[in-house]
Amino acid sequence: MIGRLVVVGVGLLGGSVALAAREGGVAREIVGVGRDRQRLEGPLRAGMVDRIATDVDAGVQNADCVVLAATVSANEQLLEIIWRSVPAGALVTDVGSTKRGIVAVAERLAVGRPLGFLGSHPMAGSEKSGWQVARADLFRAATVIVTPTDATDPRAIKGVTALWEALGARVSALDPETHDRTVAAISHLPHVAAWALVDAVARFEPGALAFAARGFRDTTRIAASDPPMWRDVLLANTDAVRASLVAFRAALDDLERLLATGDAAGVEALLTRLKATREGLA
Amino acid sequence: MIGRLVVVGVGLLGGSVALAAREGGVAREIVGVGRDRQRLEGPLRAGMVDRIATDVDAGVQNADCVVLAATVSANEQLLEIIWRSVPAGALVTDVGSTKRGIVAVAERLAVGRPLGFLGSHPMAGSEKSGWQVARADLFRAATVIVTPTDATDPRAIKGVTALWEALGARVSALDPETHDRTVAAISHLPHVAAWALVDAVARFEPGALAFAARGFRDTTRIAASDPPMWRDVLLANTDAVRASLVAFRAALDDLERLLATGDAAGVEALLTRLKATREGLA
Repeated sequence: MIGRLVVVGVGLLGGSVALAAREGGVAREIVGVGRDRQRLEGPLRAGMVDRIATDVDAGVQNADCVVLAATVSANEQLLEIIWRSVPAGALVTDVGSTKRGIVAVAERLAVGRPLGFLGSHPMAGSEKSGWQVARADLFRAATVIVTPTDATDPRAIKGVTALWEALGARVSALDPETHDRTVAAISHLPHVAAWALVDAVARFEPGALAFAARGFRDTTRIAASDPPMWRDVLLANTDAVRASLVAFRAALDDLERLLATGDAAGVEALLTRLKATREGLA
Repeated sequence: MIGRLVVVGVGLLGGSVALAAREGGVAREIVGVGRDRQRLEGPLRAGMVDRIATDVDAGVQNADCVVLAATVSANEQLLEIIWRSVPAGALVTDVGSTKRGIVAVAERLAVGRPLGFLGSHPMAGSEKSGWQVARADLFRAATVIVTPTDATDPRAIKGVTALWEALGARVSALDPETHDRTVAAISHLPHVAAWALVDAVARFEPGALAFAARGFRDTTRIAASDPPMWRDVLLANTDAVRASLVAFRAALDDLERLLATGDAAGVEALLTRLKATREGLA
């Protein structure tokens, strides 16, 4: 049981943390922090949070746990402010899609003031954004990857893990580098592919969009994801995204080579292997 | 109302034609034709078809309407046999994902014997295959693209269009070349992208597959599609698929260039445009 839980950035993820914490009786009081008071009034009126604050310093006063849920680059800047303002015993985590950056900021700040920070990344989300689409069950049966390092306070590992488990998630640990490579492959690369599919058709065969059926819709659903959030994610993880693009282009080239040579047996063998891999996902 | 409807190839699409025709009272008798008697006994026992035949010549005797629903290359071969055997007044169509090939075969055969053929492509399907996943409502509110040419018998256009409408579909007409380019863009290219995504992750970051969440799953759902069917589709439409790959690689390159130069405003503007395009799909 947390006394005061502060969510900085009350959108899909931050709002869902608040709702899940409320439903699970995880926190006595939930504070929502954001830049724009008007945008915080919806979550307040909806009972998602008990109090709101537009000043981060004031918002995290007496916090027992702070969850940073703004964009990746905003989280890094906010962490500097929060680090000075939260009580010594507070737990701090974030929900950003890349982890090397914020973990590096935390380790730098910890030299001046030791504090219980652990990076988190809930593998849950939607192409929709905003507190209106937040759900109390967003994390239920979802995986949250946490990214401890040798420098992480064991109390933070224990406390933040317990928080996510209380919100219904399964917790897995990866080091920040492995995390960023992993999500480049299974999240950022599929987003890039979805955007490129929409772009390719819109630019080169726009009339075809009128015939888009379920295959195109499912494959490109995430192309409608929040642009400012994803701008930050892609720029924070550019090296890993580009490495995954090298692998993706190699895979495209291999399939195209089989087509170009009319290698029917080779095409069928490749598709059979990939069908098995896809169906093997847990 | 059709007297005898013959479905050649009783899988997802052929089985769904039979079920929808049955439910809509569209045909008095439905015959299922396939190579393997044992595999036809399931649809027969399930009441999906009234009779089965493994001999195509015998199966299409006295047919009023024949729907070819095997793979693209098998349909072309079957069309030659059927063309000789069906009554003069019969309507013939197919459900293949590429149309230039079978329309060319039909036009060649029509020189020797005029017959009512119209190519069809229902924009409905699934990554699952087989008669067990056939559904009476598969075509409801789906688009069926038909591909008449100047040489097509107007009676076939009218009759086959009426059949699809009776099964619940909306019918649009494209010439075979435009059809093949259109489906390369909105169906074949997304499949290729889905296979390449699975392949890239499996080969270069296999540990990441354990963390695949909804984004990866939706984007790659169609990577589990039937390999023999898709081997044929890709090889029948290789030129159009490769042209769409040129457009796709150009779109990937453009996005990567913005990342490589750290162009945050450019990335956000591109993602904003693509989100609007994706959300604009009817």
